[in-house]
Amino acid sequence: MMYISINNELFSQEEANISVADLSIQRGYGIFDFLKTINNKPIFIEDYFNRFYNSAKEMHLEVALNPEQLREAILKLIAKNNIPNSGIKIILTGGFSEDGYTMVKPNLIIIQTPLNIIESETSKALALVSYNHQRQIPQVKTIDYLQAIRLQKFVKENDADDLLYHNNGKVRECPRANFFIVTRDEIITAKDEVLHGITRKKILGLTIPNYTFIERDFTLDEVYQAKEAFISSSTKNAFAVEKIDEKLIGDGKNTITKLINDKLLELIELDQKGLN
Amino acid sequence: MMYISINNELFSQEEANISVADLSIQRGYGIFDFLKTINNKPIFIEDYFNRFYNSAKEMHLEVALNPEQLREAILKLIAKNNIPNSGIKIILTGGFSEDGYTMVKPNLIIIQTPLNIIESETSKALALVSYNHQRQIPQVKTIDYLQAIRLQKFVKENDADDLLYHNNGKVRECPRANFFIVTRDEIITAKDEVLHGITRKKILGLTIPNYTFIERDFTLDEVYQAKEAFISSSTKNAFAVEKIDEKLIGDGKNTITKLINDKLLELIELDQKGLN
Repeated sequence: MMYISINNELFSQEEANISVADLSIQRGYGIFDFLKTINNKPIFIEDYFNRFYNSAKEMHLEVALNPEQLREAILKLIAKNNIPNSGIKIILTGGFSEDGYTMVKPNLIIIQTPLNIIESETSKALALVSYNHQRQIPQVKTIDYLQAIRLQKFVKENDADDLLYHNNGKVRECPRANFFIVTRDEIITAKDEVLHGITRKKILGLTIPNYTFIERDFTLDEVYQAKEAFISSSTKNAFAVEKIDEKLIGDGKNTITKLINDKLLELIELDQKGLN
Repeated sequence: MMYISINNELFSQEEANISVADLSIQRGYGIFDFLKTINNKPIFIEDYFNRFYNSAKEMHLEVALNPEQLREAILKLIAKNNIPNSGIKIILTGGFSEDGYTMVKPNLIIIQTPLNIIESETSKALALVSYNHQRQIPQVKTIDYLQAIRLQKFVKENDADDLLYHNNGKVRECPRANFFIVTRDEIITAKDEVLHGITRKKILGLTIPNYTFIERDFTLDEVYQAKEAFISSSTKNAFAVEKIDEKLIGDGKNTITKLINDKLLELIELDQKGLN
């Protein structure tokens, strides 16, 4: 039995309902963030909180809880649910709107779900299929996944695991992950018009001998020619991409991706132990 | 006391709740449509149904009710609520998703609200402020109003009533209405990358002596130079725009807009009386 926090009150999963007057249902209006816990410890919580409060501000949504109160609400949920390794999703919606359009008092929903944290070590490399789409308000983690979910069929039809968005040829991101390529001596990721992921940020802070991190636009052709390609996300860390648009990327060894993933796991372990 | 239909069951407003696992809340995933009733008669219902079922298909959402059953569900709601002049909103969400991402069985929500149908005759002309934004999947009536609601503050700051979206200078539409300009002998509206409104369609079917209807791209400069400008929507019919980006449009007489509005009202009356 899982509990869900709505406006800082705990509800059983069956009772965790909100009015259909909410602006998320009426107008797709909301933001969220997603972090993980390992052994009941939320990882990189300050980074996620910074982004969450910034998303709220950008969308003119007020968060009724300050960061200290939000942390307490999360810890309360963690204590109640007892799922040591989990994903925690914090959703902030436009709230119940009288006229179905004007913003009022946001609703804050916190959902915890079990997370298989060793998934990234056991799963196979990914296949992506590219798609021309620029996410709107890309720096904000809104709940808008219209294209991603609509295209689930397209992804399947292309024998892929996920989408790789590009804006008229300029590679952007996956629906739920940032995207990197590795060349002879550079590790490149898009700088503009993408969500700045927390895992992306941690990766850009690493030191990889003989490689320089570069944030810039790059093309699909550069992707096809890359030595390695990988995605980064809170759940997958740095995860190798094997194939894009049916083209094999590099020789499949993914040495740099694996090195980056190892270094990420070290950072996560330090944070989990409270040593960062 | 108003009733709301969820999956063809009636609930009181207080009890019309859905699980936070719904993909509208989780991922902003849903479509809707909106029609009005006059004296308890839904107006142009076939047109709205056609668009609704098409939106559902485009987003790979299954509608559990066929058009005849949906019509019955609406009539049941109308009979229960007894609001002769109303707006009826039909929302179809992605449904409760186990993993918060994969589509399952959609939820169908029907909400009826009172509508002041003579609003359009008594209100003053509108002021719009332009904004560079292209709606995604524009031909589909999705629940995505992220930009429109986020920009409510911007609209107020610009002393405007609503937004006028343009795509790098190519005029598109308002968040909840189509947009037309009147020149010396043409009535022009965007053809591509806009929602094809039902009221827009009815207008394009009218005969206006000495004027030709044209569907094509046009620029903001053409808007500023227009003799008249108006918006079209189910609630506002054809409604004059007085000012755009602080610039007065035409001489404010809006003769053609008024003529079009009168002809729309005639069409609506015919449909209301079942004579169309």
